[in-house]
Amino acid sequence: MTRPWTPARLERLFTPRSVALVGASERSNWARMIVGGLARTGFPGRVELVNGRGGEVFGRPAVARLADIAEPVDAAYVMVAAKHVLGALTEGRDAGIRNFVVLTSGFAEAGADGKDAQAQLSQLAMKDDLAVIGPNTMGFINVTDGIALMQSSLPGLPLAGDVGLVTQSGALAGATVNYCQPQRIGLSKVIALGNEAVIGVADAIDYLVSDPHTRAIAVMMEAIREPAAFIEASGRALDAGKPIVALKAGRTEAGARVAAAHTGAMAEDDRVIDAVFRQLGVIRVPSLEELITTAFLLARAGRPLAGNRLAALGISGGACNVIADRAQDEGLRVEPFNSQTIESLRPLVSEYGAINNPLDVTGAAVNQPDLFASIIRAVTSNADADVVLVQQDLPSANSGGSERFNKVLRAAAESDRVPVVVVGALPQSVPPDDDRLSADGSERVVLGGMDRAITALGRAAWWSQRHDRGPRRLPRDTRRVPVTVPDHAPGEIWGEERSRELLAPAGFPLVPATFAATLDDALAAAQRHGFPVALKAAVPAVAHKTDIGGVELGVGSSEELRAAAKRMGEALTTAGHRPDGFLVSPMRPPGVELIAGIVRNPVWGLVLAVGFGGTWAEVLSDTSLRVLPVDAGDVRDMLSELRGASLLRAPRGLPPADIDAVAQAVLTLASLAESLPDDLESIEVNPLWVRGHQVEGLDALVTWQSAETKEQHDSHH
Amino acid sequence: MTRPWTPARLERLFTPRSVALVGASERSNWARMIVGGLARTGFPGRVELVNGRGGEVFGRPAVARLADIAEPVDAAYVMVAAKHVLGALTEGRDAGIRNFVVLTSGFAEAGADGKDAQAQLSQLAMKDDLAVIGPNTMGFINVTDGIALMQSSLPGLPLAGDVGLVTQSGALAGATVNYCQPQRIGLSKVIALGNEAVIGVADAIDYLVSDPHTRAIAVMMEAIREPAAFIEASGRALDAGKPIVALKAGRTEAGARVAAAHTGAMAEDDRVIDAVFRQLGVIRVPSLEELITTAFLLARAGRPLAGNRLAALGISGGACNVIADRAQDEGLRVEPFNSQTIESLRPLVSEYGAINNPLDVTGAAVNQPDLFASIIRAVTSNADADVVLVQQDLPSANSGGSERFNKVLRAAAESDRVPVVVVGALPQSVPPDDDRLSADGSERVVLGGMDRAITALGRAAWWSQRHDRGPRRLPRDTRRVPVTVPDHAPGEIWGEERSRELLAPAGFPLVPATFAATLDDALAAAQRHGFPVALKAAVPAVAHKTDIGGVELGVGSSEELRAAAKRMGEALTTAGHRPDGFLVSPMRPPGVELIAGIVRNPVWGLVLAVGFGGTWAEVLSDTSLRVLPVDAGDVRDMLSELRGASLLRAPRGLPPADIDAVAQAVLTLASLAESLPDDLESIEVNPLWVRGHQVEGLDALVTWQSAETKEQHDSHH
Repeated sequence: MTRPWTPARLERLFTPRSVALVGASERSNWARMIVGGLARTGFPGRVELVNGRGGEVFGRPAVARLADIAEPVDAAYVMVAAKHVLGALTEGRDAGIRNFVVLTSGFAEAGADGKDAQAQLSQLAMKDDLAVIGPNTMGFINVTDGIALMQSSLPGLPLAGDVGLVTQSGALAGATVNYCQPQRIGLSKVIALGNEAVIGVADAIDYLVSDPHTRAIAVMMEAIREPAAFIEASGRALDAGKPIVALKAGRTEAGARVAAAHTGAMAEDDRVIDAVFRQLGVIRVPSLEELITTAFLLARAGRPLAGNRLAALGISGGACNVIADRAQDEGLRVEPFNSQTIESLRPLVSEYGAINNPLDVTGAAVNQPDLFASIIRAVTSNADADVVLVQQDLPSANSGGSERFNKVLRAAAESDRVPVVVVGALPQSVPPDDDRLSADGSERVVLGGMDRAITALGRAAWWSQRHDRGPRRLPRDTRRVPVTVPDHAPGEIWGEERSRELLAPAGFPLVPATFAATLDDALAAAQRHGFPVALKAAVPAVAHKTDIGGVELGVGSSEELRAAAKRMGEALTTAGHRPDGFLVSPMRPPGVELIAGIVRNPVWGLVLAVGFGGTWAEVLSDTSLRVLPVDAGDVRDMLSELRGASLLRAPRGLPPADIDAVAQAVLTLASLAESLPDDLESIEVNPLWVRGHQVEGLDALVTWQSAETKEQHDSHH
Repeated sequence: MTRPWTPARLERLFTPRSVALVGASERSNWARMIVGGLARTGFPGRVELVNGRGGEVFGRPAVARLADIAEPVDAAYVMVAAKHVLGALTEGRDAGIRNFVVLTSGFAEAGADGKDAQAQLSQLAMKDDLAVIGPNTMGFINVTDGIALMQSSLPGLPLAGDVGLVTQSGALAGATVNYCQPQRIGLSKVIALGNEAVIGVADAIDYLVSDPHTRAIAVMMEAIREPAAFIEASGRALDAGKPIVALKAGRTEAGARVAAAHTGAMAEDDRVIDAVFRQLGVIRVPSLEELITTAFLLARAGRPLAGNRLAALGISGGACNVIADRAQDEGLRVEPFNSQTIESLRPLVSEYGAINNPLDVTGAAVNQPDLFASIIRAVTSNADADVVLVQQDLPSANSGGSERFNKVLRAAAESDRVPVVVVGALPQSVPPDDDRLSADGSERVVLGGMDRAITALGRAAWWSQRHDRGPRRLPRDTRRVPVTVPDHAPGEIWGEERSRELLAPAGFPLVPATFAATLDDALAAAQRHGFPVALKAAVPAVAHKTDIGGVELGVGSSEELRAAAKRMGEALTTAGHRPDGFLVSPMRPPGVELIAGIVRNPVWGLVLAVGFGGTWAEVLSDTSLRVLPVDAGDVRDMLSELRGASLLRAPRGLPPADIDAVAQAVLTLASLAESLPDDLESIEVNPLWVRGHQVEGLDALVTWQSAETKEQHDSHH
């Protein structure tokens, strides 16, 4: 579905030249703040006050109704009580107004009646092309164009820059704007979306992707209300080279859980969101500080980092040690300087100083700004680094800089080879530097504290690598396989024998297995396969045959097979099962045992889990997740993310696992899952046995959605 | 050894009423800053300037030598060139001065000559009772008494409070002080120790433990130069209920590595420091921000937290979600409110609001400070919580507070039941509140950002629990066992048979094993033990018999034993070994396989590692470390820290492991190690087989230090 809220359409919403404030009453704190804010920030256009009783408000004439405004305004900010909101929008529409911010709360967040009211609001907006932000929101600040339709405690506009901020929470938008100011983190647009009745996060991202003043996008979300749109918008952002940094809160809230036989336990919602973000190249952060620091750093760097190699220098040996520790924590490489760098530094550093990376420039450089600058130039010109970090004392915010600070900044600005980040040891206000935020694309970044800066650098390196791989393939690229689906009832569980009928024709490699209706058939089959064999009960609807005594492994002879079949028969009878017969398979020599499973997630669709089998893996839940579709590179990534990854590369006493063959098998499973009807709940191969180039599923399980589950899932779409 | 630098002695160093500045030259930036700083901070006593050429300096008369001062001063601040430092100290001593700060660098940090000079300085100081801070340091600020013998960029003294700060790095001391000021984090003493030639970290900690103005101690270290003293001082701090928070930098620097056969790989230095800190109740943090935030929070809470239950309320739903997420990350429990709390809140919250923990107080409370205060009181009076977090917008630092802020603080201050922490959503300056840092022991804490505050709360809860368990037992409590040590050569490796001779008499439970010199003896032994058996080659000096074909497990009959012995003989011959014979042991049924090993660390002494055996454990290095001595509780803690801990509680198809029996075996091993001579390098039992109440070592290895290693180790002590 094409979304109506194109960037061009939203540009009209975010650049009003005239506004009406509906509900402008002197008794309303909100009205006072918005009116005051427009005046303080110097809104240049017409401001119409609308108050039910007309008269004079805040010392200015007010009209009683939107219809009374002589000429339509570009946007209306609506603060009336919930029950009057729909009327205000209708009236505005009739008066030719097409853009609205609705501050009023009491909609979808406030029970069934509120939900209904919000649905009406959405319908009206879609029908008549009304671009509405909210309800239950604070509005927006278009910093680039100096338009503040949002309450703020700042004395004026936020500092203009190239970070676009999107939140669902109005309060946190305000707090974040306040945080940016003393650190001189510049913003392009601040958009608080509230309940997203009409315009959602994906629309805002699309707008910022096309906004030439935005170079990085920071998103604070509590809910992802439109997953498909979010996926598409993220892809466009990655295409455009504009990083999205996201704080997705509510991680510990139990979201909709996948109810699947076994793999289900692996696919908890928040881990799925982690996986989705990783696939989309969205940088996930746990705090607002990291949200804004990471976005700022990437915006100012202006381009992806070429790699993860950090060169650092600092005015304190202690700080240099902390930098080395933290950089390693964040996946950055801090390698010794190359000989060229060492040679160029040798004449510059004190006789006592060792030339390490990070480099302690010692007190000598602190007191000689030109020397400090020369050291920076020696490193930026020569080091094999993808980013350079310079730690120094920042002058106080009120001091207007210092000679050293300015010389350091100038040396940093000269670096064309590599971005330079200047940091203080601890968070602090950053002094102004007039040209730092200028439009020349300067790559200097100044940040108060080295700790958050290094975390942000680690994330920037991750994003850069992800960006270079290009955006995630979208669902249209799905590889489907022709598949004949046998009849199945809702909620049905398919054991090994029926699951094999689905997997084998799709080309999934399976261990040979012979169905044997009688003991004699089983004996014959075992002889054909060659002892030892695995003897399993054919019990169609049982997920875990082992638990009911339905599996006997390593059966070594005809005698043993008779004994095993007898034990199995007794155990199954005790458990109340009547098997159709047996499955007989050859035993495989020791190998690495993996699990590959796909579960339908109500929000994100089919989710693939790959991990290690066995007790340890269960204890550690050592699995990696991805939303389908995936390609071979994704599967290789998944395998390399496992904590036990080295068990694949160099298994004890076994040949290294053929990763490509594993990936091929997993992709076959994925294609099959995508080709099956929507009531597939889960499909799982466990164990997936790997020994060198040999890859075989040793058991499989398929489950179909129950009628109730299907209904719940469908209601999400 | 009793340390001479008792708190009483250091009190004289840190409270000088008169000072001399030696090297007070106008060409010296340092001199200018110190002289200016003393004036700016209003040092009330006599300040003598000493300049080699006498005359007038900074507009005041200077003397040429310390000897020329008419009356001795309490302390001298020495800034002369390195080669003149010793002379200055001698001269000062002769003039009756007993306390010194030595700013000058070029000592131990600057090569062999510097090391020699520093050794002379140390000797002089010890001989003549000269309390010296440095060299290569910035000095100290006694904030409590208003004495600043340290360069600072603050306009005056730091804010007085109850956090004592100790660093080795002078530059980071200054940066940290600057960080504290806008957040109104008060300090008692700031002590930058530099090279610790005379007064070390442990002395400073002891001083702060006995300082009534200090309630929490923040330590920034790059090296722990005196481990034994640090252990003792940490114990005294825990006894006194004064938390130590430590940033130990240089984690990634390869420290001295333990060279031990197998366990060695487990015991990397930084993991040992982690273990030591955990044992000592020292809170380890990775950043300066967390160092200071955690110390401040614990100082202001004024007492250990009773547990880890958090009740939270905030003015933003988004913030409440972030708080819930982050609290769980940090090991805090956020449980639903009890019914009493819900009843008391019901009349206070808006009709739409759900009564959750964290509680979104919504815009209603934001605009009604009294309502907000009532909500806080309802929670603090009723909730089952060990700490309460209140998130709200903090007024700007210049505003002098706000009505809401002050009412919130007052409500927080009234809480006797539970400490209350007030936070803004993001880091920011904190407005002044005159009585907040008063001496009334008020428990209010205000912090700019909720993210660091929650991290600090998690650490505070950990420390509180550790504190309640009491300090670590010191070495004098070591349980020793009588042991006869057979002769051994330096560097010798003892295989299973000799190691058993050490372990068995000490009471360590071992699987039975019979030495058999011939195949016939082995057959007889196997019959006695009962088949199946384990057959191992008796090769005294081989660490890993399996690697050379010297182990055959599950040998089921006399025939199999003959075949196994033949294979083994051939394999060993190929590998160039001539075994003395065989060890024959009964096979054990499946159980959980652990490893218990002890390795001598050059810095910390004997380090115990307990973990899981097998391939997975190796891949994950799932081991827990402690420095000896330990008690049964420590070993239980170690086992519960393992990622695979649930494999002990509920092993697949096995009875739960008898943790007390495991702990007893590990303690026996520990006692044995402590009773052996100092050239023991490592002693390891692997696997340590556990099945329910049965605990048995199935193999063991002892190594003795080579002559070189012993020499290196001894040089540390």
